[in-house]
Amino acid sequence: MNGNGVHGKTTLNGKTLSGTGVNGKGVHGNGIHHVSVNGSLYPTKAKSRRQRWEVKPSEMANNTLNPIRAIVDGMKITPNPDKPMIALSIGDPTVFGNLPTDDAVLQAMKDAIDSQKYNGYAPSVGYLKSRQAVANFYSCPEAPLEAEDVILTSGCSQAIDLAISVLCNPGDNILVPCPGFSLYKTLAVSMGIKVKLYNLLPEKSWEIDLQHMESLIDERTSCLIITNPSNPCGSVFSKEHLQKILKVASRHCVPILADEIYTDMVSCSCPSMASLSSDVPILSCGGLAKRWLVPGWRLGWIQIHDRNDIFGSQIRQGLVKLTQRILGACTIVQGALEGILNNTRQSFYNDTISFLKSNSEICFNELSTIPGLNPVMPSGAMYLMVGIDMDHFPNFKNDVDFTERLVTEQSVFCLPASAFEYPNFFRIVVTVPGEMMVEACVRIREFCQCHYRPRSRDSNDLDQ
Amino acid sequence: MNGNGVHGKTTLNGKTLSGTGVNGKGVHGNGIHHVSVNGSLYPTKAKSRRQRWEVKPSEMANNTLNPIRAIVDGMKITPNPDKPMIALSIGDPTVFGNLPTDDAVLQAMKDAIDSQKYNGYAPSVGYLKSRQAVANFYSCPEAPLEAEDVILTSGCSQAIDLAISVLCNPGDNILVPCPGFSLYKTLAVSMGIKVKLYNLLPEKSWEIDLQHMESLIDERTSCLIITNPSNPCGSVFSKEHLQKILKVASRHCVPILADEIYTDMVSCSCPSMASLSSDVPILSCGGLAKRWLVPGWRLGWIQIHDRNDIFGSQIRQGLVKLTQRILGACTIVQGALEGILNNTRQSFYNDTISFLKSNSEICFNELSTIPGLNPVMPSGAMYLMVGIDMDHFPNFKNDVDFTERLVTEQSVFCLPASAFEYPNFFRIVVTVPGEMMVEACVRIREFCQCHYRPRSRDSNDLDQ
Repeated sequence: MNGNGVHGKTTLNGKTLSGTGVNGKGVHGNGIHHVSVNGSLYPTKAKSRRQRWEVKPSEMANNTLNPIRAIVDGMKITPNPDKPMIALSIGDPTVFGNLPTDDAVLQAMKDAIDSQKYNGYAPSVGYLKSRQAVANFYSCPEAPLEAEDVILTSGCSQAIDLAISVLCNPGDNILVPCPGFSLYKTLAVSMGIKVKLYNLLPEKSWEIDLQHMESLIDERTSCLIITNPSNPCGSVFSKEHLQKILKVASRHCVPILADEIYTDMVSCSCPSMASLSSDVPILSCGGLAKRWLVPGWRLGWIQIHDRNDIFGSQIRQGLVKLTQRILGACTIVQGALEGILNNTRQSFYNDTISFLKSNSEICFNELSTIPGLNPVMPSGAMYLMVGIDMDHFPNFKNDVDFTERLVTEQSVFCLPASAFEYPNFFRIVVTVPGEMMVEACVRIREFCQCHYRPRSRDSNDLDQ
Repeated sequence: MNGNGVHGKTTLNGKTLSGTGVNGKGVHGNGIHHVSVNGSLYPTKAKSRRQRWEVKPSEMANNTLNPIRAIVDGMKITPNPDKPMIALSIGDPTVFGNLPTDDAVLQAMKDAIDSQKYNGYAPSVGYLKSRQAVANFYSCPEAPLEAEDVILTSGCSQAIDLAISVLCNPGDNILVPCPGFSLYKTLAVSMGIKVKLYNLLPEKSWEIDLQHMESLIDERTSCLIITNPSNPCGSVFSKEHLQKILKVASRHCVPILADEIYTDMVSCSCPSMASLSSDVPILSCGGLAKRWLVPGWRLGWIQIHDRNDIFGSQIRQGLVKLTQRILGACTIVQGALEGILNNTRQSFYNDTISFLKSNSEICFNELSTIPGLNPVMPSGAMYLMVGIDMDHFPNFKNDVDFTERLVTEQSVFCLPASAFEYPNFFRIVVTVPGEMMVEACVRIREFCQCHYRPRSRDSNDLDQ
């Protein structure tokens, strides 16, 4: 009786039904357990079942850790009531209203709504014309792109999620920059993928310690994540440095996940990883969030660069299959994408970059004259990292303590770089209005002057 | 030297840096392997590394299976060139343009864009005021909802993904309706969760075979999925039937994932699962897609119903953590949500339901007079299932063969219900314009009349 695929005959609408009901052998995919039945003859053996309620979150939920939340939620963020709060902590360029998106971006959205053409389902990888628009926008002779090389996603986060998901199995490891964007670890650990941190070198404008990175590669290393321009460092790798990174990847046959969400938000040259690769296959993740200043819209993409056909059709098909799990970006934003990419004024991009450069310079110039602080001048993105000479600040245990007290005393909130696995630094977001940037620097100076102990190292030496 | 958390002193900006660099012991979470370094002294032992390129898709990508694609991609969809194609296969109410969304919905979107208040990041669970809007819209005395009980997601698909992800571990099993929406299986199998299919009974308007369902529950059953109203059946469970389902869940202490995306798209009463539950905790998944006719916008939600505090804070926190992986819905749609829910005209909802009911009746009345077909009259959603008396159609091997030939000869495309694990039926989408519905039925009749063999069963009997 089992698996014969046929119910007993039943009547429906006065007719005889046959051949309906439980599906037969061979229909099920992997992981399906099907109990075939015939009429009401079910297995009668008592199974072990729950006797009382006990619903626990899954391992995956338990292992989904957000280090920024873990640290910030543990901090006492109580500003000085006499000073208005200045939050330099949030990587969202829209919060202060001083960096609106371009009018052409808004118009493209309204046109997409009015057209009523973008209310239905898009293909899981995105509308072809929208993928073509991304390909046209980013294609270059060194790294040509076709529509089929582009997959649209629900923000750059989903692009990174899909890229890790297609390349890595549980037990594999990925190499991730330190300091680095915390999402890589959050995603990987939740899927049972191990994370190895390779060092960036502040004294070399946050270039990768290539020797260290190479030392971490083993046979279970399934992907090398390169963030360029960098969050949280604001650094931009030179062409020569990128070529050296590619050589390491090539030598050990490890594909690259290039997180290039901040690409073109730079005050210097910033070649894409793919434009320099002759063999290493690259999944480049990007999106509208930063350059077009609309991070909430959740329009991201993966660009597949694979000129030597190393990914081949398997990785492409794997990505397509993964997009069918929950689909991707909102169709209105997809429908607007061509207009957004083609109609945004060049001056809009330039204005954003000029503003960020100006704010970075204000911040760097101010903080670099404060004893005990070591800012590193950024070249892109919207961040600036500041080292703290902790032995000059004996009042504070660490960067978390330091930044917490900076809020309590001066109402200035910077993210402690422990959130990026990099203690004794803090990150400043340079998207705030210029006058706020200046005021924040004044307060940070006052704070440091109050707590700086000039000869603490010597006294430490005496202690030893 | 290992794990001491301190680089050698380095100079930067003319200052001495100390205490920076590699993070120390105890900073890493689960799954992190960190190689500590000191200067350039790296482990020198040769590791086993790859010698040549071999990049394979992950198990998860390989196990992400879409049964609809698997079946449709294998079909020869070549319409009769003399007849224009009528696609009754696509579960997207927008494709024919006859069911536009309400003007109030479009206006709410444009207002959200113009406000420029919704370009930045929303909280990962959605804006509080948008969650409040959903809570207000769906709250009822039997199942009260607060904003904190609502999580906004990137479409109902992500809602289902998060609900399964928080409740189930690999090796667990979930109970899923047969015939049923294929996404449950796609998601579960990709995560190593087993799927057990419980039967719906066409002769009882697709009620659940409760005895069968109960027989499948074991101690690894972590969730019972109930789709009501049903895709692909268009059926709506009575209050009494829902109460019986809840009794089974309560008896075995299994929480319910209620897929209620088609709720209120019914021509009868359709109480929510949660409004009838006194103890069973329920994650109800829904969204704008169907009722507001904008499936591409990807605005879904989970409503957490847990009056007996069985999920407790752990499941809630687990859901919140999972939302931080890739964030959720587009902020413009989130910003528009309050306006959409509050300003859509009642007549818009009524018109949609009337139209679907009228089309269902046309289709049912026509097909139920065709020998060999057994349509089941729906009460909701936008589907109608039709049984095929296969022994009256000896020209065809199965439902896939039947529907393929219906395209070739009559240019009418219906989805074979093998795509829903239910052979010998096919699904009709009743959102097409009325005249197209009529024409499709005429052609189906012609097709069946051409292939019907009235006494095939008797001759079969003679063969035996």
